[in-house]
Amino acid sequence: MEPLFSFQIEHEDTSTSARAATFTTAHGKIKTPVFMPVGTKATVKGLTPCDLREIGAQIILANTYHLEMRPGSSLIAQMGGLQTWERWDKPILTDSGGFQVFSLEEHMRIEDDKVRFRAVDYDGAWIEWTPQKNMEIAQNLGSDICMQLDICCGYPAPYEKVKRSMELSATWAEQCFAAHTRPDQALFGIVQGGMDLDLRRESIRRLQEVGDFFGYGIGGYSVGEPHETMFETLTPLLEQYMPKDKPRYLMGVGNPATLVRAVGKGVDMFDCVLPTRTARMGSAFTSEGRIKLKHARFALDKTVLDPACGCPVCKAGFSRSYLHHLVKSKEMLGAILLSKHNLYYLLSLMNRAREAILQDRYEAFQKSFLSSREGRFDF
Amino acid sequence: MEPLFSFQIEHEDTSTSARAATFTTAHGKIKTPVFMPVGTKATVKGLTPCDLREIGAQIILANTYHLEMRPGSSLIAQMGGLQTWERWDKPILTDSGGFQVFSLEEHMRIEDDKVRFRAVDYDGAWIEWTPQKNMEIAQNLGSDICMQLDICCGYPAPYEKVKRSMELSATWAEQCFAAHTRPDQALFGIVQGGMDLDLRRESIRRLQEVGDFFGYGIGGYSVGEPHETMFETLTPLLEQYMPKDKPRYLMGVGNPATLVRAVGKGVDMFDCVLPTRTARMGSAFTSEGRIKLKHARFALDKTVLDPACGCPVCKAGFSRSYLHHLVKSKEMLGAILLSKHNLYYLLSLMNRAREAILQDRYEAFQKSFLSSREGRFDF
Repeated sequence: MEPLFSFQIEHEDTSTSARAATFTTAHGKIKTPVFMPVGTKATVKGLTPCDLREIGAQIILANTYHLEMRPGSSLIAQMGGLQTWERWDKPILTDSGGFQVFSLEEHMRIEDDKVRFRAVDYDGAWIEWTPQKNMEIAQNLGSDICMQLDICCGYPAPYEKVKRSMELSATWAEQCFAAHTRPDQALFGIVQGGMDLDLRRESIRRLQEVGDFFGYGIGGYSVGEPHETMFETLTPLLEQYMPKDKPRYLMGVGNPATLVRAVGKGVDMFDCVLPTRTARMGSAFTSEGRIKLKHARFALDKTVLDPACGCPVCKAGFSRSYLHHLVKSKEMLGAILLSKHNLYYLLSLMNRAREAILQDRYEAFQKSFLSSREGRFDF
Repeated sequence: MEPLFSFQIEHEDTSTSARAATFTTAHGKIKTPVFMPVGTKATVKGLTPCDLREIGAQIILANTYHLEMRPGSSLIAQMGGLQTWERWDKPILTDSGGFQVFSLEEHMRIEDDKVRFRAVDYDGAWIEWTPQKNMEIAQNLGSDICMQLDICCGYPAPYEKVKRSMELSATWAEQCFAAHTRPDQALFGIVQGGMDLDLRRESIRRLQEVGDFFGYGIGGYSVGEPHETMFETLTPLLEQYMPKDKPRYLMGVGNPATLVRAVGKGVDMFDCVLPTRTARMGSAFTSEGRIKLKHARFALDKTVLDPACGCPVCKAGFSRSYLHHLVKSKEMLGAILLSKHNLYYLLSLMNRAREAILQDRYEAFQKSFLSSREGRFDF
């Protein structure tokens, strides 16, 4: 019998560390590198599953913490699991809630075997969250890929705090590994260690000691550090210390230039709320950088968001003038159209990156893309 | 040369006053009876033009007052007109802003040749609105059908107030008729007169005196009166006093049972914000009446909104359980899916009504539909 999961590298680029692979799951194949739209509460904000298929999404995210709080993972299990419930028949990855807990900093206490926190977005009650509970929820939800419970630090953070977060994450990795039994679900460990390469090395070493995780998340980046600071440790981590035969998922990173550069270092998977969140704030990704539609200069602009774009929004001919109006009028359609466009932008950027890798010309692709940004990574 | 506009009655039902017709405009044909989704600010809230085509919308509305306030009708004219700007290539009807002015009651003054009001939703400035200005805006927008400026009363209202509103509406009808020149746009007069049949008769008489309006709006209903009170004057108005060869548009009425009954009296066109507004509040039309998705009893309900429904939402299999979650979580997708479903419900209800008329069995259709509601018209 063929295994439910496999990760087959199709080509490694000669001049960079980029690679193209096929990640097979119980709900179908994912061609990498891939961007994964975020559907925290079992919906990618503003888009139907049909819209997501139209723009080429291969896999989407959901969040264990938010779904456990409302409506509860056992309810979703009763409804047939996440895919059936939200009418999305392709792969789903559930993240652990570790990042959400991190964002509640003043409302949480970390203990050796659990984290306690106040559910401030819900009823405000104190919640106990253990690695075991996290696995139980993920298995109830029935995602194809689930993430261990981890602890994420901000930036800057004292060495001792970063070290303890890494160590606890490794301990919890072991507990998650032991608690996880669902054979149609792949469990990923998460590398922590902040901006300290030694801690990052220790983190991956300890994760490999725990057992044979199907893949690895790379957490604790994109928490406020300068762009270059991230690559100082991310690059050697990827190129020297992480196993080459397993998928690498850089968590929470979504700005286009960073994606292109990280693919060049060997990242396979990305997720971020950036494309949909900035869309709701009225911004669009374009081949010339980000534009803010609410600016008055777009009121009479007949051009589409990005003449180089093949997304359904640009193809249908919606002008910047009309989108300016929708954003100014706070109409839902503004957020819907910009979300679709921004997600398509990242999805197709990863498709183009993949093509470049398969044709062994990733270095040129990356150089051309980054030079169009004039070295800026913030848009 | 064939005229740009025509209204051809295809069949008049034998046992009721219902009729099926084809209304030809510069942007295509409309099969009546028809429900017209409301796109006040040049967008039907939450739906793309593609979504609207998918659910079978033949014509949509836009509002002259709101579009003049933002972004301005001359800007839209510069952008090529409403259809080009909002990417909807089928017919559009623009209403006059009369109803919006009515809803600003304490912030307006009616004078013989204009209405003055405060734009409370915008910058709060006092605005002068004349019949001429209203026509200029409608012609800038380039809708296929435009409505005269009128005055709408609430219910109950003193006889003198209703009479003056009817008379002013008739005077303004004359001024609109004189100011309207665009040959690719059909102008409708609006019958007023509240719940007084003599005033309604006088209104239609004066409108016919003004000139050859292409069709007639029926305003001043659905302003708080009981359901039966409306039909007491609406029925004789339609059956005895309004010309049979012109389209009749009952403005602002959208609840399913009222539509079915009004079609039986000879109404051809309807519009209402009800399907999209109730959707945003979490309610769905079903063949068994309206349901409120936020109720806890739907949390574990695996059925679709309406098993008898063929809309894209029900066909895709979204359960009441999932929609309950979206509504409770205030997710945009809840409003999107419910809006699509509710609009489809009314659009397909009118399609079924049309079929029944063409097959000369409207009485049976109406009886069967209304008996399923047990005489209730409020849902």
